[in-house]
Amino acid sequence: MFAHNKKLQYSVHVEECNPGLANLMLEQFGGPQGELAAAMRYFTQALAEEDPGRKDMLLDIATEELSHLEVIGSIVAMLNRGAKGELAEAVAAEADLYRAMQGAGNDSHVTQLLYGGGPALINSGGMLWTAGYIDSIGDPTCDLRSNIAAEARAKIIYERLINVTADAGVKDALGFLMTREISHQQSFEKALYAIEPNFPPGKLPGNPEFANVYVNTSQGDGDMRGPWNSDDNFRYVSDREAQLAMDGGDGKPSVKLGKQQQECLSAFAGRTASETDSNPTTGAELGKQDY
Amino acid sequence: MFAHNKKLQYSVHVEECNPGLANLMLEQFGGPQGELAAAMRYFTQALAEEDPGRKDMLLDIATEELSHLEVIGSIVAMLNRGAKGELAEAVAAEADLYRAMQGAGNDSHVTQLLYGGGPALINSGGMLWTAGYIDSIGDPTCDLRSNIAAEARAKIIYERLINVTADAGVKDALGFLMTREISHQQSFEKALYAIEPNFPPGKLPGNPEFANVYVNTSQGDGDMRGPWNSDDNFRYVSDREAQLAMDGGDGKPSVKLGKQQQECLSAFAGRTASETDSNPTTGAELGKQDY
Amino acid sequence: MFAHNKKLQYSVHVEECNPGLANLMLEQFGGPQGELAAAMRYFTQALAEEDPGRKDMLLDIATEELSHLEVIGSIVAMLNRGAKGELAEAVAAEADLYRAMQGAGNDSHVTQLLYGGGPALINSGGMLWTAGYIDSIGDPTCDLRSNIAAEARAKIIYERLINVTADAGVKDALGFLMTREISHQQSFEKALYAIEPNFPPGKLPGNPEFANVYVNTSQGDGDMRGPWNSDDNFRYVSDREAQLAMDGGDGKPSVKLGKQQQECLSAFAGRTASETDSNPTTGAELGKQDY
Amino acid sequence: MFAHNKKLQYSVHVEECNPGLANLMLEQFGGPQGELAAAMRYFTQALAEEDPGRKDMLLDIATEELSHLEVIGSIVAMLNRGAKGELAEAVAAEADLYRAMQGAGNDSHVTQLLYGGGPALINSGGMLWTAGYIDSIGDPTCDLRSNIAAEARAKIIYERLINVTADAGVKDALGFLMTREISHQQSFEKALYAIEPNFPPGKLPGNPEFANVYVNTSQGDGDMRGPWNSDDNFRYVSDREAQLAMDGGDGKPSVKLGKQQQECLSAFAGRTASETDSNPTTGAELGKQDY
Amino acid sequence: MFAHNKKLQYSVHVEECNPGLANLMLEQFGGPQGELAAAMRYFTQALAEEDPGRKDMLLDIATEELSHLEVIGSIVAMLNRGAKGELAEAVAAEADLYRAMQGAGNDSHVTQLLYGGGPALINSGGMLWTAGYIDSIGDPTCDLRSNIAAEARAKIIYERLINVTADAGVKDALGFLMTREISHQQSFEKALYAIEPNFPPGKLPGNPEFANVYVNTSQGDGDMRGPWNSDDNFRYVSDREAQLAMDGGDGKPSVKLGKQQQECLSAFAGRTASETDSNPTTGAELGKQDY
Amino acid sequence: MFAHNKKLQYSVHVEECNPGLANLMLEQFGGPQGELAAAMRYFTQALAEEDPGRKDMLLDIATEELSHLEVIGSIVAMLNRGAKGELAEAVAAEADLYRAMQGAGNDSHVTQLLYGGGPALINSGGMLWTAGYIDSIGDPTCDLRSNIAAEARAKIIYERLINVTADAGVKDALGFLMTREISHQQSFEKALYAIEPNFPPGKLPGNPEFANVYVNTSQGDGDMRGPWNSDDNFRYVSDREAQLAMDGGDGKPSVKLGKQQQECLSAFAGRTASETDSNPTTGAELGKQDY
Repeated sequence: MFAHNKKLQYSVHVEECNPGLANLMLEQFGGPQGELAAAMRYFTQALAEEDPGRKDMLLDIATEELSHLEVIGSIVAMLNRGAKGELAEAVAAEADLYRAMQGAGNDSHVTQLLYGGGPALINSGGMLWTAGYIDSIGDPTCDLRSNIAAEARAKIIYERLINVTADAGVKDALGFLMTREISHQQSFEKALYAIEPNFPPGKLPGNPEFANVYVNTSQGDGDMRGPWNSDDNFRYVSDREAQLAMDGGDGKPSVKLGKQQQECLSAFAGRTASETDSNPTTGAELGKQDY
Repeated sequence: MFAHNKKLQYSVHVEECNPGLANLMLEQFGGPQGELAAAMRYFTQALAEEDPGRKDMLLDIATEELSHLEVIGSIVAMLNRGAKGELAEAVAAEADLYRAMQGAGNDSHVTQLLYGGGPALINSGGMLWTAGYIDSIGDPTCDLRSNIAAEARAKIIYERLINVTADAGVKDALGFLMTREISHQQSFEKALYAIEPNFPPGKLPGNPEFANVYVNTSQGDGDMRGPWNSDDNFRYVSDREAQLAMDGGDGKPSVKLGKQQQECLSAFAGRTASETDSNPTTGAELGKQDY
Repeated sequence: MFAHNKKLQYSVHVEECNPGLANLMLEQFGGPQGELAAAMRYFTQALAEEDPGRKDMLLDIATEELSHLEVIGSIVAMLNRGAKGELAEAVAAEADLYRAMQGAGNDSHVTQLLYGGGPALINSGGMLWTAGYIDSIGDPTCDLRSNIAAEARAKIIYERLINVTADAGVKDALGFLMTREISHQQSFEKALYAIEPNFPPGKLPGNPEFANVYVNTSQGDGDMRGPWNSDDNFRYVSDREAQLAMDGGDGKPSVKLGKQQQECLSAFAGRTASETDSNPTTGAELGKQDY
Repeated sequence: MFAHNKKLQYSVHVEECNPGLANLMLEQFGGPQGELAAAMRYFTQALAEEDPGRKDMLLDIATEELSHLEVIGSIVAMLNRGAKGELAEAVAAEADLYRAMQGAGNDSHVTQLLYGGGPALINSGGMLWTAGYIDSIGDPTCDLRSNIAAEARAKIIYERLINVTADAGVKDALGFLMTREISHQQSFEKALYAIEPNFPPGKLPGNPEFANVYVNTSQGDGDMRGPWNSDDNFRYVSDREAQLAMDGGDGKPSVKLGKQQQECLSAFAGRTASETDSNPTTGAELGKQDY
Repeated sequence: MFAHNKKLQYSVHVEECNPGLANLMLEQFGGPQGELAAAMRYFTQALAEEDPGRKDMLLDIATEELSHLEVIGSIVAMLNRGAKGELAEAVAAEADLYRAMQGAGNDSHVTQLLYGGGPALINSGGMLWTAGYIDSIGDPTCDLRSNIAAEARAKIIYERLINVTADAGVKDALGFLMTREISHQQSFEKALYAIEPNFPPGKLPGNPEFANVYVNTSQGDGDMRGPWNSDDNFRYVSDREAQLAMDGGDGKPSVKLGKQQQECLSAFAGRTASETDSNPTTGAELGKQDY
Repeated sequence: MFAHNKKLQYSVHVEECNPGLANLMLEQFGGPQGELAAAMRYFTQALAEEDPGRKDMLLDIATEELSHLEVIGSIVAMLNRGAKGELAEAVAAEADLYRAMQGAGNDSHVTQLLYGGGPALINSGGMLWTAGYIDSIGDPTCDLRSNIAAEARAKIIYERLINVTADAGVKDALGFLMTREISHQQSFEKALYAIEPNFPPGKLPGNPEFANVYVNTSQGDGDMRGPWNSDDNFRYVSDREAQLAMDGGDGKPSVKLGKQQQECLSAFAGRTASETDSNPTTGAELGKQDY
């Protein structure tokens, strides 16, 4: 069960209102690499986790990510706080309020008009948060790899936000949040490598014939070799013919059909056949422009 | 530029029509861990990649994933092929066609009714594919980690599909596709570790004060230690007070407001204040049920 | 900041595994009326709330809803727990595992195949959770009304789930969750009516000419009167002509155009005009079937 | 059945073209609080309504909301009308047309490039309208509460649009639309309170032990009391221990597993266990940066 | 402005309740080819239409499609009507109600649990309606072609629904709705061909060098010729080299960079380069399984 | 199977970096009328196509569209290339980097912050690509019509992009891409008209009573006649009464209910009835403002 304390995990002291900057911060509130995605990723994994140590870790980090959601959301709320009152009370002229929500350095009209300055679960482009951002599948060696990648991505988005933020208070809090992602990544790495073996994931081995093969499908100027396709590590298949039907078969799809299935399919194919030896007049030709 | 050969990368010989099984296969066609997501993930990364070796690798694997999309899509098409003709030609009784799209072991009504038996970019639950499934952010050390995780996940979904598939032809092709994910994961791993250093991602170092801290936010029965939060690796913070306002500040959010901003905010707060010392009659009380 | 205790707010003791029932429970986990929507609705409101009493209440209830998300998610995890291991270890025949995820009384293939039995942020139909489910707009008299309605809806979905659940342990926990919605609705009601006045919302009065008018747009057999359109409460406008252009104007849309705008528009309209006095041969006529 | 008259319900006379303002207006066309959401909300409720009076009311108001969709859509069309022709005919230099769709006070590039100046079912941030905005659940006491809240929200969005609109013609029409929401809210209120009792919704009573309990989950500085958690109205639970496992049980989730289920689960847990007493070298350590 | 009469455009007399069939009908209510998509497609086009004849036609057909939405929605409501009351009143045993919403021939749990038997704007797979289904772009020769295609598609979905419906009353109403699509297609065809010329759409001619070229990108067994790529109609390019860089250039992407841009890019590329001549130990190798 | 050559189908030589222009180009990368939608539309159709000639054509054009996706994606990557490095290396002041992603003529913050300058599958408004953009239904006469319309739409979006692009290199490549849509449209037209008959689509004839009827639902000033509703082509129904219940029935919806169904429905209707002859005090009245 969760409990809450009204103190934030990190103090947020914003220098001045700036709805345009607030909008950018939404990337880490309601964006794909943001804190809600992180919290829900770990929380939902925790609920089904069979390993008690990982379950505890996932709950620890999920709870901290919720607390980060609160920190970044508080930044958004503070940056919007001045504009919020001005729009609600409408003390300024229409044209001034209009300019205050769209103009140079400011793409905050969705936040202001639709959400009244509150932090909404959208990214900076107004895209609604979707659970499609969460890629957990219920296998620990996969989910831990997904978590490692997610922490790495979140670290970079914070770095970019820091790079565009001149407000010292916001920058300081962003630095904390960015750093915590580094720490979380290290925990997930430890948990992954504490599973042995962890590669390949799952129980089924691959087919050894195809498990260390590199198919050079993109050729021409720019073709390169490296450890990801070196002869040390892989069988390198460049021959175009050898890339086709690698099972040695005909490379075709087929299915056995029952008699009624075959008859129906023939009837369907027959009545919708495009004649190859015709040259029918088309709608486009009826309406064609003479240049 | 792409070219195409009508031979598949792997032959697909399906034993018999089975729209219910076809529907499950959609997970790897239009599902979040499926081949379109894989192909587009690597293809879009390739277009902006500055490293020529990685660019080539990403194009190689993207092109192969498109070819896998063709293989899994051909499986779907073959499994649906018999039912497609029967519905289009309507030779059977309505009740029979009705049962053929929903019934025990068969949740194929969306595929049949809406898509006419064609492979659609949905998952097995009918959820439309969305680019929210792709998590690329344009940083190589992050994107490679995301790719590693994505290959691991795809491997497992194929394993699960294999576990529920009795059709030998389908099972064989799924085995090939699953194995290729293992191979791709290895290539991405090599490419990641060929970047040195690769951790933490990005250019900004974290704040050392918080980079190796583990916050034990979830406590009570079940609290555990492991390498992910051990004293060897982390400073472990369990004290509830020490978890709050880790900057040592007041833990509050604040922002400096201009005079008009402050006045508007006060007006707004004033006219929307909820009186704490009232006990107003509510709508619910007006309509309350007497148990 | 959040803290967590590994004890649930309510014990969950499930009688037996049932992935089909688990799937239904997802309505209150990742569905539109579920606990994530509730928690995020109140949490995001709290962050921007100016009234300290309401802010505290919103945080209290948001935190409890997160704890309910944990309870319902634990129900889902327990109901799926048996099937999860069987699929991962693949000890049964393919056909048995196939039937175990789709068949009479069981629409759990998305949960099992894609999410490995973990609780995912989808509803029972596999629709991904979206922040479009949250309707907060940053005005207290609106948001409290939205919260009241949301609690009422959640109560009913729990009631429906209870009606279809024979498992006594699940039923008991659902009863607790349902009851808490009743309690929360009462809190939100008190907070709304503690704002005086609270109707109409906002600062701008309506135009008195149209504020108490009922437009009887749907006529014919079945036209009825009640307090929602009675003469006591409204001016009732049934005359079709009087419903049009209620401003007394021409009922047309117009805009003043600049000279270049007008010229371009004329050029555009001219080159795309559909001649009214022609009877052109169409594409459909080219391809028309003779019945 | 619907009929249509080409006169609008309210005349729309726009002073001058302004694609930037047009874009803001989309909030009430294709946005979550807009007229399509309103119309579809009431229309779909009406179709399944058993109460003849409410059915008539819902059809009346749905039909009027469709007419409002036409009014707001006509405002959008008029504001875009000049720019539409200029882009289609391309009489201006590329740079001028470029600036005319994005620049200070103008975020109209989606409308212009993709929709050719036509009113599209998106909000001002380009988010596509989704039926996730509609929260009807087929229970009258819930749906009426949802409708009341929806009308309140729509009123406020109109108020905000009015506050940023200097065009007198647009402002006048917005004032009408805003006022009608006030009137509709009153009708829905009458219909709700004409159901007795209407609280709690549904047929099942709550568990009296938990129906009037307030759980003070958020504590620390800022904890407050008011009618929403007063001792007059609620049993106030602040003790952290008393908040856990409120059923008096162990606060744990459990499920009875069959023998094969238990064996599979053990096998799965065993092969994916993270060793707690290890300190494995991780991928991050392989690639770690030396600061 | 719209008006409404409580008589439907076509009577709906359903023989018996069938929530499973109701669910299928949702394809034409809230599905991509359904009546809401049709109505909104034409209605939004009408609002921005400059041609008075087409504007009138679009409003006529949009209004009729809304009336069809009412017909198909009434079919859904009637088919669900019996189950709705039984779930709400819970007179049957839990297991019976459970089976009544999922089981052979019945995938109605979303409709029943979440929507209480009301027609919801989802398709038969539970996917929420999205405005992404509407493809209008504000050019008449395009939009009319889109409308023609949309009517054709809707006709086929109705045909498929008819093929699986044994209920005579439902079948009769579906036949009417299907027929009206045929009629509408003919109107849109007439309106398109009444624009002369109408091909190619728009004002800019294509580059004559590439306007009648067919690029044979897919080769191998199965390569075919027909009027769509015949020498009569097209220049047929099969030579792989001739398909590349058809402008005769180098086929590469390039951009001129400023000095600082170039320096930053080099720094970025340098610190994230993957060494090609290394063979680093990877994370996967750390955790590799020995088969 | 697919193969790839690192040469583009058309060379892309961009004059200078311009993230604002890059953002607009996304309409044809990840927008509804863009190249991914085109490629996937034809590719998925091809997989289930029974006609060998059309199957080959669909694969040819799908493969070319993938190659166009590469061209437009390369344009995006080049236009963003300078800004990408500057943000990653953070050599400029925060305020400069802030202005470089939002400001006059530049709405690129999503691309830069979230995607690091890589081409993402979003449109210019940040809306994630969704498979809802694809309207294939598995019937050739429908799908070919959909393809014709899609090519027409894509042509126009390219035309609009050309109209706002001053960069000669970008303009040249856009001209190529636009022209290819013209060519593709012609191929699809030939393939459609090579099916005889092709109208109406499908196997079921319409009901002759309603197949050539035009219902004049929108009346009043602006009512017009043209070939789309002329007496030559249609029976024109203007009489309002004749538009209702065109089957000659009662225009009502009904369903036969079983005894228990009827009883439950009565109980449900009874306990949720809104009394018509009451005038209850409402929540709004409790909180009403005195103007």
